[in-house]
Amino acid sequence: MTERPARIAIVTVSDRAARGEYEDKGGPGAEEWLRGVITSPCQIDRHIVPDGREVVAAKLRELVETGADLILVTGGTGPAPRDQTPEAVMDIAEKELAGFGEEMRRASLAEVPTAILSRQTAVIRDASLIITLPGKPAAIATCLNAVFAAVPYCLDLMGAARIETDPARIVAFRPKK
Amino acid sequence: MTERPARIAIVTVSDRAARGEYEDKGGPGAEEWLRGVITSPCQIDRHIVPDGREVVAAKLRELVETGADLILVTGGTGPAPRDQTPEAVMDIAEKELAGFGEEMRRASLAEVPTAILSRQTAVIRDASLIITLPGKPAAIATCLNAVFAAVPYCLDLMGAARIETDPARIVAFRPKK
Amino acid sequence: MTERPARIAIVTVSDRAARGEYEDKGGPGAEEWLRGVITSPCQIDRHIVPDGREVVAAKLRELVETGADLILVTGGTGPAPRDQTPEAVMDIAEKELAGFGEEMRRASLAEVPTAILSRQTAVIRDASLIITLPGKPAAIATCLNAVFAAVPYCLDLMGAARIETDPARIVAFRPKK
Repeated sequence: MTERPARIAIVTVSDRAARGEYEDKGGPGAEEWLRGVITSPCQIDRHIVPDGREVVAAKLRELVETGADLILVTGGTGPAPRDQTPEAVMDIAEKELAGFGEEMRRASLAEVPTAILSRQTAVIRDASLIITLPGKPAAIATCLNAVFAAVPYCLDLMGAARIETDPARIVAFRPKK
Repeated sequence: MTERPARIAIVTVSDRAARGEYEDKGGPGAEEWLRGVITSPCQIDRHIVPDGREVVAAKLRELVETGADLILVTGGTGPAPRDQTPEAVMDIAEKELAGFGEEMRRASLAEVPTAILSRQTAVIRDASLIITLPGKPAAIATCLNAVFAAVPYCLDLMGAARIETDPARIVAFRPKK
Repeated sequence: MTERPARIAIVTVSDRAARGEYEDKGGPGAEEWLRGVITSPCQIDRHIVPDGREVVAAKLRELVETGADLILVTGGTGPAPRDQTPEAVMDIAEKELAGFGEEMRRASLAEVPTAILSRQTAVIRDASLIITLPGKPAAIATCLNAVFAAVPYCLDLMGAARIETDPARIVAFRPKK
């Protein structure tokens, strides 16, 4: 764990947003959620890429190589033919953290029965944690509320940057040694 | 999504049923459940194949190629040596929908603690949704009751046939655009 | 299923315990739990190996070849770089039983939100059931309490040794034929 500001990347995966035909709401929604929760110094950058296994995988590799501690990917996790975000993420994964997908689906299932269609997961590559999210801001908030208490300790264990959260929003859990 | 009648295939995987030594109950049980729930036009065909990774995978490939929208596979998902349905399904899968297996196990766990031994899942190949189920009719009903609300919208997103359900049995959930 | 005594192996995965710098608590904790629960004859052996994908996989292959019915692996399932137990287990797996990981995480989540960081699972190779566990005795007990009711029947189905449990601790569930 290091005391430098955390580097966070948000990647919106959407053909229409990449072509400028559609206003990306997932990326700004994820950023707003993070800015309301993280209280330690951090740099947050947003990116938009079209759907597609290779293009998403290439963007994630680039972000890992440039030192992102946390990468949130919004969109492309459903069952439609163009939804290939999970395949891209698994292509570049060194480790999968299946508990993230399970818990995000469980939390979303309290809101809509189609939550089981989400193929969300989280993986680690080098010292980057990559979490896939839905496309809509309300659904993104449901998912981040469900899992974020575990994110700071996960980054600690991975040797990534330390982050602190506003306990009124998320109580980051770090077990006593 | 198209307005033609949905094509549904039910595949019973069982050495003994394939040899005629045992009356298949899972296939008819799944068919009865579907006929009680689906109110839109559909054609349901039943098939019986022996256990085994290659034979099950070959049958699924054939059903996908002949245009099945939904394929329910009953049997062969446990931990016994001959249970190879999940491996066959993954061999031909383009996408896995892990939420189906999680939710079917969760629902079954309310009835028997051995539900965690089930290796059920759902996958997509081309425009076919393939869901694996237990072998006993009561367990099949538990699983379909747990996940079917999400199936019609899943088929919509995949570009498969549209199906409607009897809301007294299953309220198909389609999010408002 | 055979009536011989069950052979159970407990494998502690830890660099520091393997070098003798740290007293292994997970292995003895798992053994104590098993001895309090299993009432049928069984032989329990403990092993300690360093972290690492190849060394853990090699030890598991050896234990399977020498006829272990049940192998509990403690440690190395988290997100830290040296945690490679899940990869080792998947390298030698013939079948994965995803329900074990789901249920162990769900039970652990009632205690700590970081339970979603655990990459625990269970797999089958030949006639051996391999379950991965956390490193701390209290967390091991939480996980075994959550899943062990299904273990005896799983071993029956796999053709492994029959085990009986103390119903005051764990009610082994075997469905009526």
